[in-house]
Amino acid sequence: MSKNAIYAQSGGVTAVINSSASGVIQAWRDANTGGKLYAGLNGIIGVLTEQLIDISFISEVEVAGLRQTPGGAFGSCRYKLKSLEHNRREYERLIEIFKAHDIGYFFYNGGNDSADTCLKVSQIASELGYPIQAMHVPKTIDNDLVVTDNCPGFGSVAKYVATSIREAGLDLASMSLTSTKVFILEVMGRNAGWIAASCGLASESAGQPPHIILFPEIALDQALLLAKVDYCVKSHGYCVIAVSEGLKNQDGTLIADSGTKDAFGHAQLGGVAPYVAKLIKDNLGYKYHYAIADYLQRSARHIAAKTDVEQAYQLGVAAVELSLQGLHSIMPYIKRISDNPYQYEIDYVELTEVANHEKFMPRDYISQDGFHITDKCRAYLQPLIMGEDYPEYHNGLPKYVVLQHTLIATKLAKFVIK
Amino acid sequence: MSKNAIYAQSGGVTAVINSSASGVIQAWRDANTGGKLYAGLNGIIGVLTEQLIDISFISEVEVAGLRQTPGGAFGSCRYKLKSLEHNRREYERLIEIFKAHDIGYFFYNGGNDSADTCLKVSQIASELGYPIQAMHVPKTIDNDLVVTDNCPGFGSVAKYVATSIREAGLDLASMSLTSTKVFILEVMGRNAGWIAASCGLASESAGQPPHIILFPEIALDQALLLAKVDYCVKSHGYCVIAVSEGLKNQDGTLIADSGTKDAFGHAQLGGVAPYVAKLIKDNLGYKYHYAIADYLQRSARHIAAKTDVEQAYQLGVAAVELSLQGLHSIMPYIKRISDNPYQYEIDYVELTEVANHEKFMPRDYISQDGFHITDKCRAYLQPLIMGEDYPEYHNGLPKYVVLQHTLIATKLAKFVIK
Repeated sequence: MSKNAIYAQSGGVTAVINSSASGVIQAWRDANTGGKLYAGLNGIIGVLTEQLIDISFISEVEVAGLRQTPGGAFGSCRYKLKSLEHNRREYERLIEIFKAHDIGYFFYNGGNDSADTCLKVSQIASELGYPIQAMHVPKTIDNDLVVTDNCPGFGSVAKYVATSIREAGLDLASMSLTSTKVFILEVMGRNAGWIAASCGLASESAGQPPHIILFPEIALDQALLLAKVDYCVKSHGYCVIAVSEGLKNQDGTLIADSGTKDAFGHAQLGGVAPYVAKLIKDNLGYKYHYAIADYLQRSARHIAAKTDVEQAYQLGVAAVELSLQGLHSIMPYIKRISDNPYQYEIDYVELTEVANHEKFMPRDYISQDGFHITDKCRAYLQPLIMGEDYPEYHNGLPKYVVLQHTLIATKLAKFVIK
Repeated sequence: MSKNAIYAQSGGVTAVINSSASGVIQAWRDANTGGKLYAGLNGIIGVLTEQLIDISFISEVEVAGLRQTPGGAFGSCRYKLKSLEHNRREYERLIEIFKAHDIGYFFYNGGNDSADTCLKVSQIASELGYPIQAMHVPKTIDNDLVVTDNCPGFGSVAKYVATSIREAGLDLASMSLTSTKVFILEVMGRNAGWIAASCGLASESAGQPPHIILFPEIALDQALLLAKVDYCVKSHGYCVIAVSEGLKNQDGTLIADSGTKDAFGHAQLGGVAPYVAKLIKDNLGYKYHYAIADYLQRSARHIAAKTDVEQAYQLGVAAVELSLQGLHSIMPYIKRISDNPYQYEIDYVELTEVANHEKFMPRDYISQDGFHITDKCRAYLQPLIMGEDYPEYHNGLPKYVVLQHTLIATKLAKFVIK
């Protein structure tokens, strides 16, 4: 009888991580090995605590439904395994779990930390005499994994923020004569400006919003920003700004951490958008509005990019197929062949090449004044937001699947996460 | 030769106000009276300053494009005409404009203030010996106009916020074991809780988010809220909250105005969501995230409700047709015939019945504990978010029309708005 497999989701979820899950499940079924496919409830924590769900036999409708459902259908977690020296206990527990349930394959769907965990699991399992085929299925809206053309989840956020800022820009343009003159959209991306950059796709001709993008890679020059805002308002009548939550001061500290204190000495709540808004209001006097997209951006499955949904699915499929070919300790990834028309293929890379590396925006993707994207950046981003992949609707709202999780019987003693 | 007409947009714009514009233009063309149709640039200000655009001959593609474009295509304004006693000069100027351009019809597309302006224009024009057929085309995301079943623009906001909170709820559910436990979405609605209530549509079964809705109609009871949040987190593992920007303290003051001061004595920026977040964090210790939808919600044409787009269009058409039948000083409106199936017809009402009234949420639309909507409210709201009406896409983004405005030659002396 063939070995069983475990699939788990890790880290911040996305609009398409379940599309990868759908690909893993479908490919596992198609392979028809006789082995079971389990999901860890809430990611690696469910594996450690033996909270496993048998997903070998969920219905066809549910597998298809997963492809169009945001969030993490099996639960995710922010939990990074420590090094073997610091927490040998956890690794040994994992091996016990794998042995107890006859697991031969481990599909870990996550970002940078997960790639590292996946690699460690593979290495340690081998050391402890129970080799396991650990495969990393890439996912992160931050788009900061190396080697791969892009990270599933990112393209859909990019499409959402570019669409949203285009729409808000049209709103602002119509109100600006007598009311709001500046609109600021705060987007995610603490270290890398990929999401902020995507807002720039909405600006397809001169003067079209957004007029200014503030990247985490470019320290805020307040005087320069104010001059540019004033110029925009005076030339277009209004100014639309996209700002990354990771925007930094000249000294490298995060703007989000440098807020003033309230009367009770608490750090001021609210993020970067209100900070930039206040800076503009205090110095230029312009009326402003701001939006903070937060979770809305990374869960907006209703406007996911078709390219992104497909790539997420294909990477799930590839992880299973490659593992059944005997490969392990790898990450299937997207290899771009051409920008226009966008052509890519699914390839794979050793996890040692990926884990613990981070991909930042190249400087030549950002315009010289630091306030917008270049044509080179546009050529990179453009294909990633292509295509619509609308979910089904019921009662006027997207019909997302919520699976009923039935845990399989445990075989080992209880394990407490420390 | 038949009289000409002016169409103008007023107040906060919506995702579908241009659909009404599209209806006005199409109906005017179909009537083929020989008269021209002008738009005021930036609403009534463009009429006062004689900044008029001839929209009789914009292309078919543009008329169709308007139907799928958010914002105000001709510019809007926040500018309320004062009473005749306080600013006779403006009314006299309007009549001069109407005379100079042989205007017989005035279509004013706006909310409560515009209904009042429209009525005054009609009354005063008649007094000054130049009768004009003033028609109010209803529009407001606040949904607070009386008589009409709902206000164009509202249904699309409702669909957007309900979709967004459902999506963010799925995200939160998957992260809550090890990370964020409370998510708060701040929505518009300073006086009436219609938009906040719409978030409740996403909760179709027990325990489904949102778990708590905070309405402007129900003063915040902090202890009760904290108890409910704690209960939610302990029973579901997480808690999703929708809060209206108009939420008030027990003494009736706006939460948004009661923020603490920063170290420099400035009022703290940020709205109601961070206030509620901090309240929960300080008292219960739960990690939170919050989103502020702001302009994104009212410009989200990409997920507009088909019902809303159609009703906006039909009301534009009705305004023209009724005026050509000789009616004036009226507002065409949506008369609901049945909830399920949703059936309605377009009727009309005298402006005197509409102007200066406001429609609030009935108390029996809000659950007894003040934290959710009732079945009665759901039956009212449900039809308004039905149907999808996707815009065309180009380069992965909605293809919205931006008209090139060419002003017609002026005939009068310059007029300065005071």
